[in-house]
Amino acid sequence: MSTALIILAAGKGTRMMSDTPKVLHEIAHAPMLWHAMRAGQALAPDRTVVVTGHDAEAVAASARAYDPDATCVLQEEQLGTGHAVAQARPALDGFSGDAIVLYGDTPFISEETLAAMQAARQTHDVVVLGFEPADPGRYGRLVTEGTSLLRIVEWKDATDEERAINLCNSGVIAADSDKLFELLDGVGNDNASGEYYLTDVVGLARDRGLSATVVRCPESETLGINSRAELSAAEAQFQSRARAALMEDGVSLQAPDTVFLAWDTVIGRDAQVEPNVIFGPGVTVETGARIRAFSHLEGCHVSRGAVVGPYARLRPGAELSEDVHVGNFVEIKNATLAAGVKANHLTYIGDAEVGERTNIGAGTITCNYDGVFKHQTKIGRDAFIGSDTMLVAPISVGDGAMTGSGSTITEDVPPGALGLGRAKQVTKPGFARKLMDMLRARKAAQGKKD
Amino acid sequence: MSTALIILAAGKGTRMMSDTPKVLHEIAHAPMLWHAMRAGQALAPDRTVVVTGHDAEAVAASARAYDPDATCVLQEEQLGTGHAVAQARPALDGFSGDAIVLYGDTPFISEETLAAMQAARQTHDVVVLGFEPADPGRYGRLVTEGTSLLRIVEWKDATDEERAINLCNSGVIAADSDKLFELLDGVGNDNASGEYYLTDVVGLARDRGLSATVVRCPESETLGINSRAELSAAEAQFQSRARAALMEDGVSLQAPDTVFLAWDTVIGRDAQVEPNVIFGPGVTVETGARIRAFSHLEGCHVSRGAVVGPYARLRPGAELSEDVHVGNFVEIKNATLAAGVKANHLTYIGDAEVGERTNIGAGTITCNYDGVFKHQTKIGRDAFIGSDTMLVAPISVGDGAMTGSGSTITEDVPPGALGLGRAKQVTKPGFARKLMDMLRARKAAQGKKD
Amino acid sequence: MSTALIILAAGKGTRMMSDTPKVLHEIAHAPMLWHAMRAGQALAPDRTVVVTGHDAEAVAASARAYDPDATCVLQEEQLGTGHAVAQARPALDGFSGDAIVLYGDTPFISEETLAAMQAARQTHDVVVLGFEPADPGRYGRLVTEGTSLLRIVEWKDATDEERAINLCNSGVIAADSDKLFELLDGVGNDNASGEYYLTDVVGLARDRGLSATVVRCPESETLGINSRAELSAAEAQFQSRARAALMEDGVSLQAPDTVFLAWDTVIGRDAQVEPNVIFGPGVTVETGARIRAFSHLEGCHVSRGAVVGPYARLRPGAELSEDVHVGNFVEIKNATLAAGVKANHLTYIGDAEVGERTNIGAGTITCNYDGVFKHQTKIGRDAFIGSDTMLVAPISVGDGAMTGSGSTITEDVPPGALGLGRAKQVTKPGFARKLMDMLRARKAAQGKKD
Repeated sequence: MSTALIILAAGKGTRMMSDTPKVLHEIAHAPMLWHAMRAGQALAPDRTVVVTGHDAEAVAASARAYDPDATCVLQEEQLGTGHAVAQARPALDGFSGDAIVLYGDTPFISEETLAAMQAARQTHDVVVLGFEPADPGRYGRLVTEGTSLLRIVEWKDATDEERAINLCNSGVIAADSDKLFELLDGVGNDNASGEYYLTDVVGLARDRGLSATVVRCPESETLGINSRAELSAAEAQFQSRARAALMEDGVSLQAPDTVFLAWDTVIGRDAQVEPNVIFGPGVTVETGARIRAFSHLEGCHVSRGAVVGPYARLRPGAELSEDVHVGNFVEIKNATLAAGVKANHLTYIGDAEVGERTNIGAGTITCNYDGVFKHQTKIGRDAFIGSDTMLVAPISVGDGAMTGSGSTITEDVPPGALGLGRAKQVTKPGFARKLMDMLRARKAAQGKKD
Repeated sequence: MSTALIILAAGKGTRMMSDTPKVLHEIAHAPMLWHAMRAGQALAPDRTVVVTGHDAEAVAASARAYDPDATCVLQEEQLGTGHAVAQARPALDGFSGDAIVLYGDTPFISEETLAAMQAARQTHDVVVLGFEPADPGRYGRLVTEGTSLLRIVEWKDATDEERAINLCNSGVIAADSDKLFELLDGVGNDNASGEYYLTDVVGLARDRGLSATVVRCPESETLGINSRAELSAAEAQFQSRARAALMEDGVSLQAPDTVFLAWDTVIGRDAQVEPNVIFGPGVTVETGARIRAFSHLEGCHVSRGAVVGPYARLRPGAELSEDVHVGNFVEIKNATLAAGVKANHLTYIGDAEVGERTNIGAGTITCNYDGVFKHQTKIGRDAFIGSDTMLVAPISVGDGAMTGSGSTITEDVPPGALGLGRAKQVTKPGFARKLMDMLRARKAAQGKKD
Repeated sequence: MSTALIILAAGKGTRMMSDTPKVLHEIAHAPMLWHAMRAGQALAPDRTVVVTGHDAEAVAASARAYDPDATCVLQEEQLGTGHAVAQARPALDGFSGDAIVLYGDTPFISEETLAAMQAARQTHDVVVLGFEPADPGRYGRLVTEGTSLLRIVEWKDATDEERAINLCNSGVIAADSDKLFELLDGVGNDNASGEYYLTDVVGLARDRGLSATVVRCPESETLGINSRAELSAAEAQFQSRARAALMEDGVSLQAPDTVFLAWDTVIGRDAQVEPNVIFGPGVTVETGARIRAFSHLEGCHVSRGAVVGPYARLRPGAELSEDVHVGNFVEIKNATLAAGVKANHLTYIGDAEVGERTNIGAGTITCNYDGVFKHQTKIGRDAFIGSDTMLVAPISVGDGAMTGSGSTITEDVPPGALGLGRAKQVTKPGFARKLMDMLRARKAAQGKKD
């Protein structure tokens, strides 16, 4: 059966105390909206409709960045969840199949849960996702009879008996798309809030002789995010699951609580990740690589046998081949390091290609920016870049070439050649002694103690 | 009504296993004494008296550093809390009003609690702060009748019935200053420890027909610190509350548990703080600034739109204007960076001023120390400092000026000029190949494998 | 009485999802096998026999690295714990005394527990270590009568009544060595798994009229490790105990949860360790030293009064004398820094000796590697190394000598002399302005905005 996702993402999120709309706040370096959209991918949807509202342009841009085929519709006024879903109707014109309503601020619905809802749709017209929270508080309650869902009551409208029910409404709902919109036509706003409630479709469906049921999921899946404290709790939940999953797959994490993963981090078996490592988006690490403490990786690839850090920063476009070593206080950006390259200390390699087995001395810098343009550096294989070499790009250093330490290299160095830019050393006997004596005397004259 | 604080800070803290007196051990970069003194500020006290004892000079210096108007009195021998409070009497000569006794090792009494004690003083002569701990253990017990406090019994003197009382004594007490000292005159040391107990004033007050009552506070506020384990628990409690408060105010903390705040850290709404950031004392961060992972800030100011880190270290006197970027492995000390300045890699800027939009190349160092004196560096606006420039201070680089990468700049560079200190590059064809062949042959001759 | 340890270390650990044998996975930078062997040292054993199996060579090498006197025996096929222990028999030929069986994947048995087992051996022939877990699950049960242990039943063979027993089998067992092997002769493999169970010796002993008893220990001591999640839990348990022990000894840990210790870390009283510090193996820190945030130490010694970090990396062979300062983005490897040396910024010191009070400027690098050989750098006392000095080793800088900032030093600098390798500065008026105008014009011509 065809499936359409309707993702509600119109809310402002006042309690976030932020100028950024709520669904664009990030969990593991992806907007929470993306997590919700990714969750929905489990259903292999034919259509995805995102209902935007507050800061609609930014939200729509983000939705399309995740899924270029997503349709974004605008809910001009926030008149309730029923009204929000109704905005999706034109976008689903001509679509025939199931619609499922998800929420941009509820990022953690699992594949298993959505599959269970899909299965339940075989036997029921409307399927609602429920959960049994530790503290039911003011959630809406699901009134059931056997496997049948009779209606959803908002807490404030509920009787004492209904409030004693522990089964609560997550808001997630699945139904035939056409039927859902027909039912929404019947939903009114004659209630305390003056809003059109999506939840009212259950009662209406029952009134029309349609069947409804509940699928249950763990409370953690329905975690909604309304404040920064809840956002950080969601982040913690994501991290905790992602770390456990890596360990199950055979990744070594000495102190998992100190490793921060992105939503798309991939790490191979027997790779080692030491404490205090941060993964930004777009990182893949192969089997057996070692990411040492205090490293920071974004948009990069680390091949097997490579050692990164401690204190290494790999920025987007860093591509490390097998057995590359990138050591402390080294930054690599938009650069390919071929197998066996070593850059162990205090170095910046940006916009560069480095050939096999080349050794980059401490303090080397690719001077890739002239104030207006960025330029490329090419270094061959088996080269030896002396410490504190400035490579003024565009520049090329050939295979097996060397540069003398302390050199500023402005002209290409051919293969096998030595490039040297260094003033001859002059040694002035006794000069240091005299200079220090003079400085100390001056200080003493100032009445300060040395 | 006038209020005087009497803060007991004479104890050694043997269980700290330290040469530093207990109240000078720090929580969030301030001595716990300062936290206690700050708590007392909620009462807008007219006088503050700190009773010192062990290492009195250091404790008094610290107290005056926090509040120059504080009076420090010396308790020569530690003869009990009653004796300690009595030492404050001469310092309060001529003072008329309430006295409240706080403790230098009990840093977390809240404003609300102190206000409640002040209010209770309207109706009772003596007000004692009590708490109901999860485990009452060997705390002194508060014996009450209705709202009246009858007496305080030490655990070891308590009957089984009294030990069953769950309301415990925090030691914090408020009373009219003159009455408190009169009552203390009546306190003896005829007990097992041979000490003068402050707690005895309650019984004495009742004997004299005065009224006493109890104000209750959460156990966490009365947390006393006697060991390093308790100190680290107090630190954790402080951090946890401070992080939550920031999030409520709209600060983004991706992983709050990894962000360490100082007692006086100020961060604006929608500022982002990534994981593993440490704030030392004296830091202010404006709205919308971004503090990236692994950064370390002390005594500095970061303006809106600025980006700091990852791996940036801002030391005291670092002043970052709007949109400044300070990147990885960069240290800024006692330096003002005007709007739009970028210093992105491997740089040390100390004792300097840098003008608007100037770009500081990777590896730049202000050579501010000659072995005896520190000197200033001035760089104008729209300047371009080439990579690996050594700026030998005192030095000035004018507006729109440049320095060539790898240059040691010892003379001022006028506006619009290029300063260059660089040996001409010499390229020696084939030299690298010959040198490596020679080195490898030598190694082979040593019988080692390459 | 003489004691022999028999440590079972033959298992593969399939659930680790690793090519490394289970007992070589590390806790606090030591293979878990070492922790088990170290636990056994509490008994001052005369002999240690390690039973290897999977990847026997690697395991044996590791065992001998910890204890060169350990005997490693090979269990060719994994036929059960009884079979494994039996492999130790030839290695204990001629030995007379007690044997105690420990497990390479059970690293945390305490000294107190082993002493209690030794004591219990005075009165009983066989002593088994039991524990009362929160969830007894499928552990084998210990059937007792008073202080007598009657037998051990595997969970799957246990009656309902036996399963209700809360006292479980840790597998650790002590007995006279000769008797243990005799009993093992009687153990068969006529059971569901077809394995020889060590646990069967208890029933056999009772049958032969020998006495058996149980010593109890906390569940945390018998923690066995079968997956990476359990490994990280064991790591967390180790760290948590090690941090608490340091604090009890008077070490300042502001945020203990962020400090990672190695199995052999030694830190003196009143030393301060800030958040996010990592200790690799072989580190000693003296009283009163200060290890600042984000530092990484391995195989090094830090003397009293020294300050390390933030962002300092001390690698093996770093030896810091009293009052040395090693600051941010500084790496020290195989180098001795005499009292009062300062290396505060962006520096690499490797294979070097530095004399008293010498100041190493920012950006200094010892160029210790020529592509084939490593060379030594010697710097005297009271020297002043200017910023960005390249010290091309082998090289020596004398007492009280200086180097000019930006110099590449290739020839020794005698005491009191100044070594300078620096091109004279040339200043080209207006050049920067023209160059930037040209670059911006070119960019504009490319139709890009500046």
